Formats: sequence, C-alpha cells, structure tokens
Amino acid sequence: MLTVGVDIGGTKIGAGVVDPDGELLASTKHPTDPTDPAEIEAAVVSAVSELRESYDVTAVGVAAAGYVSPQRDGMVFAPNIAWRDYPLRDRLVGGIDLPIVIENDANAAGWAEFRFGAGRDVDHMVMLTVGTGLGGAVIFDGTLLRGAFGAAGEFGHMEMVPHGHFCGCGQEGCWEMYASGRALTRAARAAVVAQPDRSEGIVQAAGGPDKKVKGTHVTAAAEVGDPLATELLDELGRWLGKGISDLAAVVDPQLAVVGGGVVAAGDLLLDPARDAFRRHLTARGFRGELRIEPAEMGNEAGMIGAADLART
Amino acid sequence: MLTVGVDIGGTKIGAGVVDPDGELLASTKHPTDPTDPAEIEAAVVSAVSELRESYDVTAVGVAAAGYVSPQRDGMVFAPNIAWRDYPLRDRLVGGIDLPIVIENDANAAGWAEFRFGAGRDVDHMVMLTVGTGLGGAVIFDGTLLRGAFGAAGEFGHMEMVPHGHFCGCGQEGCWEMYASGRALTRAARAAVVAQPDRSEGIVQAAGGPDKKVKGTHVTAAAEVGDPLATELLDELGRWLGKGISDLAAVVDPQLAVVGGGVVAAGDLLLDPARDAFRRHLTARGFRGELRIEPAEMGNEAGMIGAADLART
Amino acid sequence: MLTVGVDIGGTKIGAGVVDPDGELLASTKHPTDPTDPAEIEAAVVSAVSELRESYDVTAVGVAAAGYVSPQRDGMVFAPNIAWRDYPLRDRLVGGIDLPIVIENDANAAGWAEFRFGAGRDVDHMVMLTVGTGLGGAVIFDGTLLRGAFGAAGEFGHMEMVPHGHFCGCGQEGCWEMYASGRALTRAARAAVVAQPDRSEGIVQAAGGPDKKVKGTHVTAAAEVGDPLATELLDELGRWLGKGISDLAAVVDPQLAVVGGGVVAAGDLLLDPARDAFRRHLTARGFRGELRIEPAEMGNEAGMIGAADLART
Amino acid sequence: MLTVGVDIGGTKIGAGVVDPDGELLASTKHPTDPTDPAEIEAAVVSAVSELRESYDVTAVGVAAAGYVSPQRDGMVFAPNIAWRDYPLRDRLVGGIDLPIVIENDANAAGWAEFRFGAGRDVDHMVMLTVGTGLGGAVIFDGTLLRGAFGAAGEFGHMEMVPHGHFCGCGQEGCWEMYASGRALTRAARAAVVAQPDRSEGIVQAAGGPDKKVKGTHVTAAAEVGDPLATELLDELGRWLGKGISDLAAVVDPQLAVVGGGVVAAGDLLLDPARDAFRRHLTARGFRGELRIEPAEMGNEAGMIGAADLART
Repeated sequence: MLTVGVDIGGTKIGAGVVDPDGELLASTKHPTDPTDPAEIEAAVVSAVSELRESYDVTAVGVAAAGYVSPQRDGMVFAPNIAWRDYPLRDRLVGGIDLPIVIENDANAAGWAEFRFGAGRDVDHMVMLTVGTGLGGAVIFDGTLLRGAFGAAGEFGHMEMVPHGHFCGCGQEGCWEMYASGRALTRAARAAVVAQPDRSEGIVQAAGGPDKKVKGTHVTAAAEVGDPLATELLDELGRWLGKGISDLAAVVDPQLAVVGGGVVAAGDLLLDPARDAFRRHLTARGFRGELRIEPAEMGNEAGMIGAADLART
Repeated sequence: MLTVGVDIGGTKIGAGVVDPDGELLASTKHPTDPTDPAEIEAAVVSAVSELRESYDVTAVGVAAAGYVSPQRDGMVFAPNIAWRDYPLRDRLVGGIDLPIVIENDANAAGWAEFRFGAGRDVDHMVMLTVGTGLGGAVIFDGTLLRGAFGAAGEFGHMEMVPHGHFCGCGQEGCWEMYASGRALTRAARAAVVAQPDRSEGIVQAAGGPDKKVKGTHVTAAAEVGDPLATELLDELGRWLGKGISDLAAVVDPQLAVVGGGVVAAGDLLLDPARDAFRRHLTARGFRGELRIEPAEMGNEAGMIGAADLART
Repeated sequence: MLTVGVDIGGTKIGAGVVDPDGELLASTKHPTDPTDPAEIEAAVVSAVSELRESYDVTAVGVAAAGYVSPQRDGMVFAPNIAWRDYPLRDRLVGGIDLPIVIENDANAAGWAEFRFGAGRDVDHMVMLTVGTGLGGAVIFDGTLLRGAFGAAGEFGHMEMVPHGHFCGCGQEGCWEMYASGRALTRAARAAVVAQPDRSEGIVQAAGGPDKKVKGTHVTAAAEVGDPLATELLDELGRWLGKGISDLAAVVDPQLAVVGGGVVAAGDLLLDPARDAFRRHLTARGFRGELRIEPAEMGNEAGMIGAADLART
Repeated sequence: MLTVGVDIGGTKIGAGVVDPDGELLASTKHPTDPTDPAEIEAAVVSAVSELRESYDVTAVGVAAAGYVSPQRDGMVFAPNIAWRDYPLRDRLVGGIDLPIVIENDANAAGWAEFRFGAGRDVDHMVMLTVGTGLGGAVIFDGTLLRGAFGAAGEFGHMEMVPHGHFCGCGQEGCWEMYASGRALTRAARAAVVAQPDRSEGIVQAAGGPDKKVKGTHVTAAAEVGDPLATELLDELGRWLGKGISDLAAVVDPQLAVVGGGVVAAGDLLLDPARDAFRRHLTARGFRGELRIEPAEMGNEAGMIGAADLART
C-alpha cells in the first residue's frame, strides 16, 4: 500500500511516493509562490497526478508549516502563506479524489524519525527541527501528540528569556529566537559588530566584509576551528539543551531527535546541547536521562512522515 | 469494586476507601516522621488494615511526592523523605498482600480531577498543584502521561528565569520558585523589607511585626483588599499563567486545573493567571485556547486519584 | 560674552548664538547628508559664519551623537556618521578660527538642563534623553562627568536584561532597547501582532492597518485613553525608572531629568517611571530619594549646552 | 600630621594610626557585639585613647558598612548593626574630642587604594570590595563621589537579573547576589546538589559531605585545578566583569580595583572578569578600556582610607 507525501515549503513543494517501510520510491518538486495559495494548490494537484501515473496510491498526506486544525483538514494559521482558517483539504480534494490528511511539517518530520529514523527503537520521543525557526513534535507511547487544538509540539514559542528577543509571533524571548538558524545568523551579525577583533574567520567564510553573514558561514568557520564560530554554535547548542531539559520536565521522553539545517554542524552543536541538558536537568543522577541524537531522515522527513500519517 | 488510596505527606499519611465513582467512603489519618521510612511504612500498613476491617478492597494506590519509577513500584527520588531508588512496593506488600501501585502525588491529584473533578468533561488536561511547591500532571487522550522515566509532569522545574531564584533542586529559576506557596511567602517577606510603607496590611494579617509572614497571610490580606497583598497574588498568578502558555506550546491541553493550598485565593490568583496566559500565548486569536479552572476535589484528590489508578 | 552652539543631528545641523544666561539670541538650520562628513563640516562652517555676521562670538561648542575624545577635540566613534577617530576640531578650525569644543550631544543637553533648565537648583543630577535611542549625562558637584575615555553617561548601554533584545551596538539587553523611542515602536508593533484584539486604537492613530506603527502613535492613542497604548507607555516608564534606580546606586544624584521626544507623553511616562524607581530602590525609606522630572529646555538643549560648555 | 582610622566590622573594631603616606604606624583590635551600639562606641573610644597614648593625632576617621549621611556625621542605615538615622559622630565626640568623619567602609577602602594602592597613578577609578557582599566606591578626578544622599558607590544593588536571586535588601537580582562571597557559597551549595558527580573536589575541600561548603572551599579546590570549582569562580568573575562594563557606561573609569576576601582567588577570578568585561563593553575597539586589577592594601584598606579621609 503506497501513499504520497507532500511537503509545502516557502518557495517550492515536494511530493513523493512512499511505501510502508518509509522508502521513497519516486519524488518530484515544483517551485511555488508563497503569496498565491491557488498556485500552491495547483502545484500539489499536479505533483500528485504526476506520481500517480506510475504508482498506485491510496492516500495523500500534506505537511505544511503552521497550526493545523484538530480535524487535520485545514490550516488555522500559517506564518509564511496567507492561510487563516483555511480549508486546505477541501481545496485539494477535487483535484485529487483520495483521502487527504493535513499535518504540521515538524510533526510530519518527527513522525518519520519515529517510524523509520533516529527514533525507530523508542516509544517516547521529541523532535526538534532547527531550521530557520524551531519546530517540534512530541510522540508519546507511539502516538503523535497533536493537542486539543492541533498545536502541541510548538516548542519554539516557549519563553526562554523574560523580556528577551522579539519573535515574529509578537512575543518576547521565544526559544526559537535562541535556537534556530535565524538565531545563529543574528548572533553572528551581532558578534561581528561587538567583537570585530575575533570575527575575521566568520567574515571570510561569508566572502568578505561587504557580505551578509549567515548561519551557514558560522558552521563553515567552526568546522575549520574558528574560535568565535565555535563559541556561537556552542551558545546555540546550550540554548537547545536547556530547552530540552524543560521538555524533559513536561513529557519526559527517552530521546530528543534534532533535525533541520543547523544540525549539519553535528557534534559542534549537539555536544554543547548534551552538556547543557545535563546541567539543567533536575534530579540528575536519580532519574533516567534522555539521549540527544541527530535526525537521520534528511530533507525528505516531512514528505515521508506525511505519507505515513496518511496511511493510518 | 473498592480500592484504597494512600497519600504520604510530609508529616502524616492519609488513607481512604474509594468507590469506582470517586466517592470517599471512609478515611483515616496517621501522623508520621518523615525521617523514618520504616515508621511511614508501618503507618501505611496499619491504615490499610484498619480500613479493610470494614471494607472489602481489591488494590491499593499510594501517592507520594517525588520521582516514581517507570514500573510504578518504587520511588527513585523524593525531596522530603530519604528515599533513593527505594522499593516501596516491596516494603509494603508483606503487610498488605494486595496489588499496590505507586504514583507521584501530583499525578494522582491530576488523575482525580480528570476522572471526577474539574476535568471530568475533557480529554486533554494539565493539572498544577500550587502547594508548598508546584507539582503537575499531564493527561492526554484520557491517559496519564508518566514519561519514559516516570518524570513527566514535573513542570515545577521548567526554567522560567535564567539565573533566577535558587531552587532546592540545585537549579536556578525553576517555575516552582515563582509559582508556589513558598514563592508567595518569600515574595511577601521581601516586600515587607523593600516596601515597608505598603506592607502594614500583610504584617497585621501575620499577627504583628514580630511574626513571620506566610503566604496564607497574603491571601487573607488580599481578601480584604490590601493593595500590596493583591499585587503579590497578581504577580504569582502572572507567573502561573505565563508557564501555562509554555505548557500550551508543548502539550496543548483543553484545560489547566489549578489546585493546591494557594488556590484558596480563587480569582485573585486565577484572573491574573488567565490574563497572563492570553498575553503570552502565541497565535492567540488564530488557535483554540485552554481554560484555567480551580480544582474541585480538595485535599483528598491525591488519595482518590491513587485509589482510582490502583483500580486500572 | 556670546558663544555659538552647534547641534549635528542625523539629517540636519542647527546652530545658535547663546548668551551667558542660556538665552538663544538667534539660530539657523541646514539640512545635511549624514553619509558625507565634508558636507557636514561645510554646513557647520557656513552656519557659524552666518551667525557671526550679526553677533560677536568668542567660541564654538559642537554637539554630536557618539563617543567624544577625552580631549574634546574629535569623535572616536559615531553611530550614524562615518566618524572613527575623527579629528573634527581640526577639520572645522580652518573655517571658523575660534576656540572649538566638541561634546557628546546628550552631555550637552544635560549641561543645558543643569545650568538653565530643570536642574538649575541642584548640584548632582543625571540627564536621560529618551529619543530614538537613550542618551545620558552625569553632572556631579557642578561638573560634567566625562569619564576617563570620554564615555561617561552612556547609560543606554547598561545591560538591563541578560540575553535581552539585540542592540545596534552588538550587545544584548541594553537599556536603550527597553527605554527609547525605538523600543516603544518595536513594542507597539509586537503588540499589534500578539494582541490584535486590543490594538485598534494604536492602529487607528497610525492611520490604518496598512501603515507602520510608530512610538508617536502610541503616545497619541494613550492621550485619548487607549488601554494598550497606556500599557505600552507604562512599560516603557517602568524600564526607565528601574534603570534610574541603578544609576542611584552608582552616582546617587538628587534629580533625574528626562528629555527627548518620548517625554512628550508626560506623566503617562513619568509616573510609571517614578513608581518603578521607588519599587526598585534599595534602602527606600532610609535614604534620600531623587526626583524624576521632565526636561525644560526642549529641542534646543543640545545647542545651548554646547554653547555654554564652549564658554568655560 | 597623624590621624586614626577606625574600621567597625561585624564582630570587631580595628583602629590604627596612619601617617600622610598611608603607613600604618600602630594598630589595635577589640571584639564587639554588633547588637550593642553602646559597646561598639565604648570600644571605639577606648581604641582611640589607647593609640593616642603613643601618638599625637589630629583627627579620626570611622568606616562602617551602611549608608552614611551626606554630612558624614552619622549612619542613616546599616545592614548589620541597629543604626537607623544614627548620630554616630555625636555619640563618639564626647569620648574622643577630635574632629571625626564617618565614611562608608567600601568608600574608605576605595580611597585607600586610590591614594596609596592599586589606583595611586590614576585619576578616575572604581573600587569593588568582593567580601560577604559587594561594596563599591567611585573616585572621579581625584574626588570620592559620595552622592547627593551619601549613597553613591552602592553598586552591589544594581539589578543584574530581572526576577533574579532575592537580596537581603528586599529586591531581586542585585549584583551582590551574583558577585560576592555569599554568591559563591550559594552557587557552590547548589552545584553540590545539582551536579553531585562533579562536586567531590569541593566537598573534600570543605572537609567532607557532612560539612557546609563555603566560598573559601571553592577557591581552595580551584587552586588545585578542580574543574567545578574553577567553573564557579569563572562564573563569579563573569558577573563581576559584566557589571564593570555597566559601570564603564556610567562613570567610565580608567581602572577597576577588585578587593575583598574573594580576590584571594587572583586571576582565577580576575581573568574571567576581564574577559567578560571586554565582551560586554559597547564600542569596544573604538574607545579606551579600563584595566581590572587586584587591590593592594589588604584588610587594612578601610582603616587607612578612613584615616586619610579624616585628614582632608
């Protein structure tokens, strides 16, 4: 029994045929304009049709950033696309005519890791997707925890710092502003201003002083041992670990899987996260401790997870 | 089918016979010495025997403060009693000879509220027990979420303030240090020092300047309109609501039930909590919002919840 | 004995003839391009010449935003103009041929208030200029405290919040990011996102939902009683008062004069500042307390102060 | 011209004869009961008399912890002795019959360092006395800055952390609670609870697990390379340096002298302070930077400074 998973991103949609073992049998991509919901829908319909020419599929899972309705049939709010209480399933069903399930993209990625990736051997896990922002998912006793209003796993908006950095959500101090690609970029730019004598490595990685520093430049500089870059990843890792200790106090998982683009930094990020987690964990030494591990499913996690969730 | 619930507190144990509807048919109390585990066990055995003289019971649930083992057969760590990896069930079973289940006291109280009290009509809830400390429980889709290591629902140790108040757990800034009876007492004592010109009402409620101010004195003064006392409860309520917005970002419940001694302050506490919750909730207006309601089961919640958990 | 004061702003320079009583006898303004230091210098020279056609002056004081050299002859760093270790006096003296003194603009404004304005009756005061940013000055025992490196009175960069809002200086949590016109603007924009149901008054003051909200719109809305706007000014005032209590712990002045554009909000800003000051003041009731008062010298304070400092 | 300096401490008074070069010619100590102001006064009178038997002195300076009146004739508030608006000079003058000047103890110590110790070559300095608490002094252009109400240099009560550790003054987050001997002791005790696996070195330095850990044990353990102890001193040093960067933003001194018992840790404390200072300093690289140096005058600084201030 095959299903299709669709991942609606900011500038493109990806779709793929997935088998029950999480294997991606075929996939396709279409560029899209995030300001044009109708174009996005047309691209989804077209991608699914294209895949169905070669594969017999029974259902479609659609992953997107934002708050998904509890009934999994629409988007109540999306940060990047003009969806507000938007009946996405109804808009797609005419062109697809298969069962369709909508899911939050971080939830879908978390589910893929749980079923086929880093979490395949555990029962209770959390997933943290450290991309531009910080997405999350909670899987408890084999079940994806969606929440009463479809908003569980929105860890990125836990407040880490009272009166801290402004978040796009209108709040201050959200975890996402301390543990995400955007956070790394902003911290790096601030460091270039505040510590000009230490920032040459990062500036060079960015291509020179007239270029805008990004998080990826920090990772590149850290990989060749630049002290400031290493420090910045260390700081990011520490915020990550600290927040994971908060999650341990709420849902107490066995495993925290860290995915998203920033995880390319590997143990330069995860070791400080592990260390900070342990330092902040209450009753350490008297209670079991979760592991913090990198994601294994890569960029296809959202697509594969959505496909698998459509199956069940 | 009747069961016994036992609630092991700091200075006494309580035990009661509970029916499947959560009715407490009979109960008894014994003073105990928290430094003497053997005495506590003897008291539990004796209380259960006493109740069994008149009632036919099939199981015993024991609630206590601390981290319970995932197998629900022992205490891995307790803050007030010298239990470390302690096989409490094995120590009791000789004298009781019935199935025994150990549960965290806040989990037991949360379960009682879920089954018979403020949460009886919802599927997803969190419980906050604002007593001396801040205990918690998560119930998701009708199931008490215990966590991979038996430590779910330990909200009180989420970090609210980086470098904030020292907690007995050795960490800084734990939620419990801002939203608990102990927090109220400390804030009141600090206010008496820092704002002597505004603290007369609280000092009088405490019985005069030579008496130690406690949280209960703040509540008493606030109930007759004392401005500083009202402010202190307001502040406590705001920390409560702020943390609940963090819980909404993780587990997204329909309802947060607030119990424990401090909830005697009623809406003087809960209204500021509701207000702060709404102010800190990301995507407010676009997503469903939980309700914050007082607990209904009173001091017997732990006993009744433990009894009910022993049944299942 | 008359002197000229020049105030170099972001988009224009102002210059005026000032008598020993702080009276502004004549003034002139020239628009300037902040990216062109040569144009700025030409404008200063031209303005001084123009004024000297009608008045006999003996010295020139020049106020500008940034770090002034301890010798008061140049700018070591400016936030808005491309001055780095810049010998401003040498660049001007050829065209002016009078004694020239360079001074930080907030220091100049503070000095004007001390000599002729809100501080004329005190010996020890601090000045806070709450404009786009937060500038400051310390006057102690009748002397303007410049500091060992010309950087005293840069209060705006005291850290108020560990890991707080990013400042243009590259640090986090600077006071300026919580108590300035920019802070008010950002807080208002965040509130519009986070509390859409309460922000209608501010949005209307800004001219509608398609307009960018600014601090002045908040003040306008607060003046007609809008609750959210009042709250935002209250919050700004509280950060102001809190920081003033820190200044009291360092230099212990009699008076804090608050000037700059935001002070147009009057007691809507200053009353919360006074209240927060008192709440945060250590040993309150046992020690003397400074007053917090609005500036009296208006926009000409920098010009008048610079002219007077050139005299001495 | 010789003078006597008296240092009134918590459990004893010290007095010494000091010459104009800051040499201590003779000294004496008397134990005292802090709860008995009359006994303290008798001890001061007696000590001064004793010294005058051998030396001809012209004035007496008295240093004590607390807020000194602006007229330097009394204590408006003391933390450890029951002085509230207390006319200390009047109480002593009958038994002494010489000019008497009262001074805050940290101010006196700072003055001694400025005149004869680490600050003898600078014009602008701050002194930080890191003892049980955190005392301070500001010397500007050769003058001890006392403040409008005698409370300048009370740095220890600047707020470093909103909602941070409770201070004895009734406020939260005072610098003193992060950078003092008491802070070190509390942080060490918390670390022993939170990180039992890393605290053996500190526990051994304290004499075993049944002993109370103190700050001095941390220093002892750090001196033999214990990682946790080193970390704790590092953290203390960072708070120190961070606060010094705030002082640089207000009074911009050339030099920060660090004295008090904790400075025994030497560069284990001061190197992290220097590093944190630089990281937090706005406009670093464009402005002059103060040095952070250890005090040189030792425990007699208060006595010597008080004697010297009595001279002028």
